[in-house]
Amino acid sequence: MTVRVGILGATGAVGQRLVELLAPHPQFEIAALTASESSADSAYRSVAKWRTGSPMPESVADMMVSPTEPVAVSDDVELLFSALPSSVASTVESAFCEAGYLVSSNSSNERMAEDVPLVIPEVNADHIELLEIQRDERGWDGALVKNPNCSTITFVPTLDALSAFGVERVHVATLQAVSGAGYDGVSSMEIIDNAIPHIGGEESKLESESRKLLGSFDGSSLSLDPVDVGASCNRIPTLDGHLENVWVETTESMTVDDVREAMERYPSLPLNSSPDPLIYVLDQPDRPQPRLDRNRGDGMAISVGGIRESTFGIQYNCLAHNTIRGAAGASVLNGELLLKEGYL
Amino acid sequence: MTVRVGILGATGAVGQRLVELLAPHPQFEIAALTASESSADSAYRSVAKWRTGSPMPESVADMMVSPTEPVAVSDDVELLFSALPSSVASTVESAFCEAGYLVSSNSSNERMAEDVPLVIPEVNADHIELLEIQRDERGWDGALVKNPNCSTITFVPTLDALSAFGVERVHVATLQAVSGAGYDGVSSMEIIDNAIPHIGGEESKLESESRKLLGSFDGSSLSLDPVDVGASCNRIPTLDGHLENVWVETTESMTVDDVREAMERYPSLPLNSSPDPLIYVLDQPDRPQPRLDRNRGDGMAISVGGIRESTFGIQYNCLAHNTIRGAAGASVLNGELLLKEGYL
Amino acid sequence: MTVRVGILGATGAVGQRLVELLAPHPQFEIAALTASESSADSAYRSVAKWRTGSPMPESVADMMVSPTEPVAVSDDVELLFSALPSSVASTVESAFCEAGYLVSSNSSNERMAEDVPLVIPEVNADHIELLEIQRDERGWDGALVKNPNCSTITFVPTLDALSAFGVERVHVATLQAVSGAGYDGVSSMEIIDNAIPHIGGEESKLESESRKLLGSFDGSSLSLDPVDVGASCNRIPTLDGHLENVWVETTESMTVDDVREAMERYPSLPLNSSPDPLIYVLDQPDRPQPRLDRNRGDGMAISVGGIRESTFGIQYNCLAHNTIRGAAGASVLNGELLLKEGYL
Amino acid sequence: MTVRVGILGATGAVGQRLVELLAPHPQFEIAALTASESSADSAYRSVAKWRTGSPMPESVADMMVSPTEPVAVSDDVELLFSALPSSVASTVESAFCEAGYLVSSNSSNERMAEDVPLVIPEVNADHIELLEIQRDERGWDGALVKNPNCSTITFVPTLDALSAFGVERVHVATLQAVSGAGYDGVSSMEIIDNAIPHIGGEESKLESESRKLLGSFDGSSLSLDPVDVGASCNRIPTLDGHLENVWVETTESMTVDDVREAMERYPSLPLNSSPDPLIYVLDQPDRPQPRLDRNRGDGMAISVGGIRESTFGIQYNCLAHNTIRGAAGASVLNGELLLKEGYL
Repeated sequence: MTVRVGILGATGAVGQRLVELLAPHPQFEIAALTASESSADSAYRSVAKWRTGSPMPESVADMMVSPTEPVAVSDDVELLFSALPSSVASTVESAFCEAGYLVSSNSSNERMAEDVPLVIPEVNADHIELLEIQRDERGWDGALVKNPNCSTITFVPTLDALSAFGVERVHVATLQAVSGAGYDGVSSMEIIDNAIPHIGGEESKLESESRKLLGSFDGSSLSLDPVDVGASCNRIPTLDGHLENVWVETTESMTVDDVREAMERYPSLPLNSSPDPLIYVLDQPDRPQPRLDRNRGDGMAISVGGIRESTFGIQYNCLAHNTIRGAAGASVLNGELLLKEGYL
Repeated sequence: MTVRVGILGATGAVGQRLVELLAPHPQFEIAALTASESSADSAYRSVAKWRTGSPMPESVADMMVSPTEPVAVSDDVELLFSALPSSVASTVESAFCEAGYLVSSNSSNERMAEDVPLVIPEVNADHIELLEIQRDERGWDGALVKNPNCSTITFVPTLDALSAFGVERVHVATLQAVSGAGYDGVSSMEIIDNAIPHIGGEESKLESESRKLLGSFDGSSLSLDPVDVGASCNRIPTLDGHLENVWVETTESMTVDDVREAMERYPSLPLNSSPDPLIYVLDQPDRPQPRLDRNRGDGMAISVGGIRESTFGIQYNCLAHNTIRGAAGASVLNGELLLKEGYL
Repeated sequence: MTVRVGILGATGAVGQRLVELLAPHPQFEIAALTASESSADSAYRSVAKWRTGSPMPESVADMMVSPTEPVAVSDDVELLFSALPSSVASTVESAFCEAGYLVSSNSSNERMAEDVPLVIPEVNADHIELLEIQRDERGWDGALVKNPNCSTITFVPTLDALSAFGVERVHVATLQAVSGAGYDGVSSMEIIDNAIPHIGGEESKLESESRKLLGSFDGSSLSLDPVDVGASCNRIPTLDGHLENVWVETTESMTVDDVREAMERYPSLPLNSSPDPLIYVLDQPDRPQPRLDRNRGDGMAISVGGIRESTFGIQYNCLAHNTIRGAAGASVLNGELLLKEGYL
Repeated sequence: MTVRVGILGATGAVGQRLVELLAPHPQFEIAALTASESSADSAYRSVAKWRTGSPMPESVADMMVSPTEPVAVSDDVELLFSALPSSVASTVESAFCEAGYLVSSNSSNERMAEDVPLVIPEVNADHIELLEIQRDERGWDGALVKNPNCSTITFVPTLDALSAFGVERVHVATLQAVSGAGYDGVSSMEIIDNAIPHIGGEESKLESESRKLLGSFDGSSLSLDPVDVGASCNRIPTLDGHLENVWVETTESMTVDDVREAMERYPSLPLNSSPDPLIYVLDQPDRPQPRLDRNRGDGMAISVGGIRESTFGIQYNCLAHNTIRGAAGASVLNGELLLKEGYL
């Protein structure tokens, strides 16, 4: 028995990744694809400019694309994955939730809302219970769950792995791939032989989302974690895979071995898309590297390397595939969590 | 009247940049070019695989290349610029100094030696007086002055500009261009669609060299500055220009305006290669960028942008051309300082 | 005495190159800048997102941008350089010509019209006399002259250099830089670690424009040259500089030396932007290369290398800077020709 | 029952690809790995700097590496795949053949020797019978079979598909990936924002090897095909996948549909690594593209697109993965042919 699911914004870069991940998924079956008005009522094959390295799954190629409205999506679809631009998502997602759909969304709107669970299942699966409060407050039959920003997802599990040492201060510098900005987000003239030390709004996302993800939920409200995170974000000429340099200062002292052990022991979850191990530690000092390590665990693992003692605490580098673990795969994983927890 | 100068290691990447800078220099005249045995006794034109965008200066094209030994260099050459690999430099530079030559070197050996001035003229010109002690201790007629590592040079002037605020803690993440590793240092298979979060020995250079550069010389000995610097170094697919993300914590509080003003007022020097302003502040948040800003001030200026309040102190980005301000131009500038201070 | 000139479409990529070339030009003075409605009536500084490596010329920074209409441009402007998109140019340029302006245009519309001179001054300056016929037929006080497509400009002068040998058949494969598609024309996701063997409409431009450029004008009509050109066009991850592989079959046999000599002797013109030599021949077999050779002659020279005997006739590679010699510089050069020939 | 095989030159780029392809191969079992003296007598894990995106196969990681000499390889190894540099291969391969081993080699030496079969199984499997003549003439118990150069392999099957039309003249321009030069073959400084219109010796390989591959073997000698091929070879900043622009002139006229049909019908072979279809025709005019199409058929298919009528005959673009179909996979396929034809 598979759950019938839909993809909101199925023709864009993250939407295509969702199609790739969901077409062969053992628990989900793609039953609806939506896009903007201009693409609606056409076959997916004809409106999705398919750009991944693998061929378009035959099972969706001839599916008709619907407009992104609740009335256009069949009632027997239970779960929607949203890859909408946040400007559109902020109104449309609510409409779907009100109409009774569960929405697992990658869009940035409402991530910090008090009654919206922001979830990386391996880190804070228990936050999903915020949905009860959300339904009460909003009067929804459906519900809305969010995954964080791609660059937040990359380093937060590594912080959580070190929680026993009392993480107090974190500096993180990101080297982010161009796919994070969408297919047409970064022009070649901007980035070839170049780097851009600014991604609008990104640094504050890392700083605030990490506090929510590491926060604790007592059944009635969520307390933010007091960790101080300072981020500096850069775009570099890499296609996929966000690489991050992290310095961590903790209340308890840690050795390099402590960190390696904590990372390696960090648990995976019994969800279809959660890789085992979740955090893969590399001993070579020059790893992880985007091209060599982004596909580990089918793009869902986090690679860590270069763990070393630093002028300030411990320093390491981490990496994840930004459009799989950091976007489409993150939403799918949240859908799997909803299924496991009985919301479907 | 020009000073006759020579270039040790004239055929490599930094050696070629030295040729470019010195050929039209108003104070210096290239009178000797040296290279390894295999290239010696040939015309420069035939052994230097010239790779810069501009044509090889005609004045050096037919000059004979000498082996890198004091006996092979004419006595009327007074100043040598060294672009030797540090493995070679550690023995050869001493031999030239002992033979009476002044050597302005870009190589990493002896940078931290107590009696060797490590100098960025705009930052610590007074350290040049260490040469008196060096000559006494080593019994040299010549003398050895060093410039720092390319990634150190990029951010240390910005720290010095903030010295009035009491710089205590600095985190710096670097995004370094491939030219920093020499012409054949980074293969295309390593770096296209990739980034490498490790450059051997680089992080400790930033951490220690900055303490020496910012240290104080009382006429008899040099005290290291107590600043704590933590560095994380990355190689990215950029040809020239090192971009750095910096977080600075100070004893006195600073505003964004304080930082901008301190940077803009930071003085240039009346030396031929010192640009005015030395530090160029950009207001756009997405600058500096390697390709757009590396050639500012003929590659000798430092560009700063993205000055912002941070979770921890103040945060900004800085950039310099790594083979000009960070290497060949740095050595030339030290040669100009030697001339101004009467060592020639 | 300088001629007052304007730039139609001054904010785009070619428009910015025109500003760069015209601001310091000894014969022209920028007196008008136009752009689309949305940018009109603002200072150039505030609407042109300036992206070249050099700073925006101070002389234009505070100039007000006009809408692209004849009534908005002062009557004392005599010559307009057009960098408009061809969709816009096809109606707007006529309106300016009718209103009495001379227009030197880079846009592709009307390039093949019988009464429009398509000119590379060094190749076919005499075609400019078509303007008499154009004015008669169209009843214009002004006049319209075109330069060819960037990839046509790169190889046609090399064919003209070989005209004495009777050029019959030409195969040309192009490796074109991303700047040819405009600043946002090629996304980084499309081209990093990739190449695209198609540029819409480009191949037929090379094939037809070369026949017109090499054709002869007898004072009353233009005869196309019978040369057969077959083109294959590719986009590659290069910023500037179109590299082309050329095979030429001629009626008279040629040696490699014949070709080198003909190229080297090909005359430059006494126009401000015509470099001497126009065609620069390199002996190294692996040249020209875009990054090393595109700036030769301030971006106006054509570099040729790898001249060799081929299975079919003679084979060589040529290169020119696509946004200077191939676009903005080509229009400026045609403006200089109009001035020299007394049209201004 | 699997055949025990060895890899000569197992630590280099092509050697690593051979390991990747042979480790899971159903017919072959890796029983020997050789390398140069300096790497011999160590575990493969410790001497092969493994650089592919996938992990090193566990089955070879602890295998001891032997020196590249017949005495060092066990007698029960029957087939050797050679990824040696041609300078080494020219002496070593003969020694192995004399010692009784069958060698399927990717090295360029002896490819044009009259008694050495140069084979792409789908094109000229019958040439394998040259081995009888080879053994007679050379007195070998073993035998030597070669696959062509990577850029030859990419386009020759497409010519063979058109053989019914009488292929007379072929122009081919190649856009080749950096991996074709080996891991350290092209430095990043040479190729970022650049292209190199020269690959030493490459053009003559395409021109001569295609005549041999398309030639006919009558049981006693091989006649070269009279086709005239003119090649122009370029290196571009792409990691994997050689893209080629082809113009074909034939004695019989062909339409675009004729060509598409001939390509699509071109037969695959019942060998493990021969993909079906061998030639994959894409209708979009901007395909094939290296990054999007190189992995088709597990890197063994040839992609063709942009079939169009040309000034001269028919024009199209083709692409293959240069280190799989063009090197390691080509050698494995020849090994499969040797097995099928009873040489093992």
